[in-house]
Amino acid sequence: MADKFISMRNLKFLLYDVFEIEELTRASYFNEHNRKSCDLILDAALKLGTKLLHPVFEEMDRIPPELKDGTVKVHPKVGTILKEFGENGWISASFPYEGGGDQLPMIVYNACNMIFSASNYSGSIYAGLSAGSVNLILSFGNQDLKTAFTEKMISGKWQGTMALTEPHAGSSLADITTTAFPTDAGHYLLQGQKIFISAGDHSGAENVVHLVLAKIEGAPKGSKGISLFVVPKRRIKANGSLEPNDVVVTQIFHKLGYRGAPITELSFGEKKDCHAYLVGELHKGLSYMFQMMNEARIGVGLGAASIASAAYYAALDYAQNRLQGRKLDNKDPQTPQIPIIEHPDVKRMLLFQRSVVEGAISLLLQCSRYEDMQKISDEKDKERYHLLLDLLTPVAKTFPSEMGILSTSMAIQCFGGYGYCEDFPVEQHFRDMRIHPIHEGTTGIQAMDLLGRKVIMKNGKAFFLYLEEIRNLIKQAALFPALQPLCDCLENALKTLEQVTGHLTALAMEKGAEIFLADAALYLEMFGIITISWQWLLQAVAIQQNSRENTSRAESQFIEGKLFTCRYYFAYELPKIEALAKRLMDNDPMTVSMDSLFFED
Amino acid sequence: MADKFISMRNLKFLLYDVFEIEELTRASYFNEHNRKSCDLILDAALKLGTKLLHPVFEEMDRIPPELKDGTVKVHPKVGTILKEFGENGWISASFPYEGGGDQLPMIVYNACNMIFSASNYSGSIYAGLSAGSVNLILSFGNQDLKTAFTEKMISGKWQGTMALTEPHAGSSLADITTTAFPTDAGHYLLQGQKIFISAGDHSGAENVVHLVLAKIEGAPKGSKGISLFVVPKRRIKANGSLEPNDVVVTQIFHKLGYRGAPITELSFGEKKDCHAYLVGELHKGLSYMFQMMNEARIGVGLGAASIASAAYYAALDYAQNRLQGRKLDNKDPQTPQIPIIEHPDVKRMLLFQRSVVEGAISLLLQCSRYEDMQKISDEKDKERYHLLLDLLTPVAKTFPSEMGILSTSMAIQCFGGYGYCEDFPVEQHFRDMRIHPIHEGTTGIQAMDLLGRKVIMKNGKAFFLYLEEIRNLIKQAALFPALQPLCDCLENALKTLEQVTGHLTALAMEKGAEIFLADAALYLEMFGIITISWQWLLQAVAIQQNSRENTSRAESQFIEGKLFTCRYYFAYELPKIEALAKRLMDNDPMTVSMDSLFFED
Repeated sequence: MADKFISMRNLKFLLYDVFEIEELTRASYFNEHNRKSCDLILDAALKLGTKLLHPVFEEMDRIPPELKDGTVKVHPKVGTILKEFGENGWISASFPYEGGGDQLPMIVYNACNMIFSASNYSGSIYAGLSAGSVNLILSFGNQDLKTAFTEKMISGKWQGTMALTEPHAGSSLADITTTAFPTDAGHYLLQGQKIFISAGDHSGAENVVHLVLAKIEGAPKGSKGISLFVVPKRRIKANGSLEPNDVVVTQIFHKLGYRGAPITELSFGEKKDCHAYLVGELHKGLSYMFQMMNEARIGVGLGAASIASAAYYAALDYAQNRLQGRKLDNKDPQTPQIPIIEHPDVKRMLLFQRSVVEGAISLLLQCSRYEDMQKISDEKDKERYHLLLDLLTPVAKTFPSEMGILSTSMAIQCFGGYGYCEDFPVEQHFRDMRIHPIHEGTTGIQAMDLLGRKVIMKNGKAFFLYLEEIRNLIKQAALFPALQPLCDCLENALKTLEQVTGHLTALAMEKGAEIFLADAALYLEMFGIITISWQWLLQAVAIQQNSRENTSRAESQFIEGKLFTCRYYFAYELPKIEALAKRLMDNDPMTVSMDSLFFED
Repeated sequence: MADKFISMRNLKFLLYDVFEIEELTRASYFNEHNRKSCDLILDAALKLGTKLLHPVFEEMDRIPPELKDGTVKVHPKVGTILKEFGENGWISASFPYEGGGDQLPMIVYNACNMIFSASNYSGSIYAGLSAGSVNLILSFGNQDLKTAFTEKMISGKWQGTMALTEPHAGSSLADITTTAFPTDAGHYLLQGQKIFISAGDHSGAENVVHLVLAKIEGAPKGSKGISLFVVPKRRIKANGSLEPNDVVVTQIFHKLGYRGAPITELSFGEKKDCHAYLVGELHKGLSYMFQMMNEARIGVGLGAASIASAAYYAALDYAQNRLQGRKLDNKDPQTPQIPIIEHPDVKRMLLFQRSVVEGAISLLLQCSRYEDMQKISDEKDKERYHLLLDLLTPVAKTFPSEMGILSTSMAIQCFGGYGYCEDFPVEQHFRDMRIHPIHEGTTGIQAMDLLGRKVIMKNGKAFFLYLEEIRNLIKQAALFPALQPLCDCLENALKTLEQVTGHLTALAMEKGAEIFLADAALYLEMFGIITISWQWLLQAVAIQQNSRENTSRAESQFIEGKLFTCRYYFAYELPKIEALAKRLMDNDPMTVSMDSLFFED
């Protein structure tokens, strides 16, 4: 089937068989939902993706946004998409009832978001950005802000954004200089410049509401002096009408991919007339923003996994239909050529992609499940799920993003020369993918977050919970003889992880943060590979537990495919941790000791 | 220094200190050249790259070729470039004197080609394609063909191409259907279609001369029935003027990158009036073409290494100048931000790129040296160098191409968000790179060539020579205590390689070709990593052998940088062979046994 971009069978397998959402929907918070209603929601999402988003996937790339007379013109369908998402309740679906939402479990909501992102990544981000911004206002804003802004944003009429980065403050957010000056009227006057603001302005929305990090005049230096503001493009007058708020788009960035979304540079307060409204308390902006950022990081992983999914299904379709070559033991050129999927090397490339895509999707839903479980658990369990989610967030952001580059690249490779051409969608997926290891915190930042913060927080509590989760699974898996070899591999991998982690934390004491974190990116890579192995074993266990006699042919193909992909991951990918562990243990901090002048010649 | 795209210091280090070309130029074949003349040639190449090619690097991408009224309009500078290359003798530089060349050693010629490719990959390919085509005519064509075509091609007035691929015959060349019908007049009439023909037509050349694979009517099926033809776009009339030869450009491909060069679809003989001239003997076309193809494969590796070089220097420049963040032990936000090169993670990303770039360049020059040595050796040594070159060709093609994707991706990562934008050149390098694992034989094809043909040919003779080369080096290296740990690592790697190779060749006997070659791509990857480790140790030995007291500061920075990069490669990259070896030895041919229906769901 051409134009398949995601497997609904796989999503339902994960939701129902692996993560058993019916367990969630028995809790009172979620009890208006059930498997049947979730099925309907997933089908509605697929319909929206197929009918509205996917048809303009290519066009939004080929006709990118343009800055004209101060306004960002986007593809005409962007307005339709945003409104459709609003009117059908997609922006607020996971919010609590009192925030205008449906209390949809995040795991279902994020499965839907995967469908949207896989159908057209650029097209899917508008609603997602609004949802994140509204969530921040609902969580930390006062009633006035809620009343003034959230309804329009939820409806899809207004666009929400998050505005953090500045020209000289990207990874180093502590160095932002955008300044808010207090006024007697209660609002602040904002001055400064922000860059790389996704959907920072566009012709598809009546207004844009920026959630902006800035420093109030005289605030402490560094990250402790950062506050959060709501800054609309057009502010609301007393009579309810809108007037310009001195926010100007100074340029849009021309990018490798992700071209259907305008990434803007914004200037606030050039005429000293930009009103900004404080969210929550003074100087707490960064901690508030981190709520959104953590969601956004999961969102980035989700986008990456979804793009990789779309590329994989394009490659699979091509491999099933493209005839080229013959079996190696057939030397007769008179016999017809065979579909390239019959070549083991092509099968290997497809298995790689599938293992990345379905492994990453599983991890993202695992994280969503932890988020849901927090909402329905007692204090002790709440902390458990919170810690696990916190620990896994940099992994769920990074693994799909980094491996997605390789996976979409492999999709191109399956197409041969055609993959390099614009006639097929894979080159666009490859381009759309490349932003993900960068935005919402680069891989380097995620790595320091994982090793320098998450693994060691609370004396390693989250890390030990993580080991416990996996070891509990291994115990279950060991009941099935077929899974025993995988259990052994994973247990060995955990031992390696413990050993490396112990070595590094000792190093931290002995040699300080610089050497401790020098190879954090390798640690994150190792952690990611092990985490995905866990997710694959989890899927294999679910298959064993649900195995029935007399399954349909389609069903048994799906099951066999899953088990082969799981075995592929353990045989081809998991062994890669050894090289990483070797380097992480070898005590030669060359990237710290090397003088940067040695790059000169 | 901005706009640096290659290190001349490194090229000269490799040419003079590592590969000691003065040893070559003592041989009578090369004795009109010497170190001084080579320096002049390299400087001339740098000047051409800097003044002519590099200024239009971006523009040739932004204003890609267009098919208009049957003609391919290219950037106006393409004609200038091709003529400049012709007039200054670059197209024929490595040819023998009797072919109109200068007998320049390939190692110097290819060092120049790296300068050109790094300055502007698309711009550099026109002359290279002509050189390859002329070489084929000189090697296998009769005097009439030589007289008619080579002079104009060497002068840069006419473009040469190689036309192999057809819509349904890419990797499977045996399946081409383009047909040549004999005529009484001596020429053939050609009919058929070719795709993905680089520079297959363009406004910068007066004529285009295609070297075309086709089957003579009634020829044997499969690859044994393939002949080689010269097919000009415009044929030469008796009076010396040109007339159309029924060759039509039916489309140009719109591509991810490599946009400065038109990749065309050609239709031959739509009016049954396309004259084709047989090169050499009937049915020997494929073996002739392989001469060009082997050169072209080295050329692809060279292009990839060069693009990675340009991306690396862009990233290095940015990392040296971009201020962001502070040392981890400095918590004071009042202190100024530091250049990002001071962060260990950034240094690691730069070391990765440098190790790939300089490792790959070294390997490519090693191959060029073998080519040169063939020309000046007695029969026994000639065979030795021939076998080594043959064995290493798939590695020299693939390692730079595959690792170049990661290396240019890492360059983007060094830039953060800016790397994703068109304002900087790295996104173009990333796009230009992606074709290399595909054209001139995909990585899958190279892998089967290495394991299924080269390693086992002549009972493993080439493979044993390869081991001998490396072990000879290890012996030399062991004289320097500082290199002892690297010697041990490399010796262990060779043992692993021997073990895996033994295992696989036994498997071939026992289980047949399909299982033997199922993971050939992993074998090639492992082979590549070990080969590059060899090249790094070779460089380290050259440094030790040439070490002097009282070197200049610049010189000692270069030396220290080389040694750190060598250590980086051994510590971070070489250990990756273990995972590959583990998989190659594990006896579970899952990509052979998996039914392709298991990808359905």
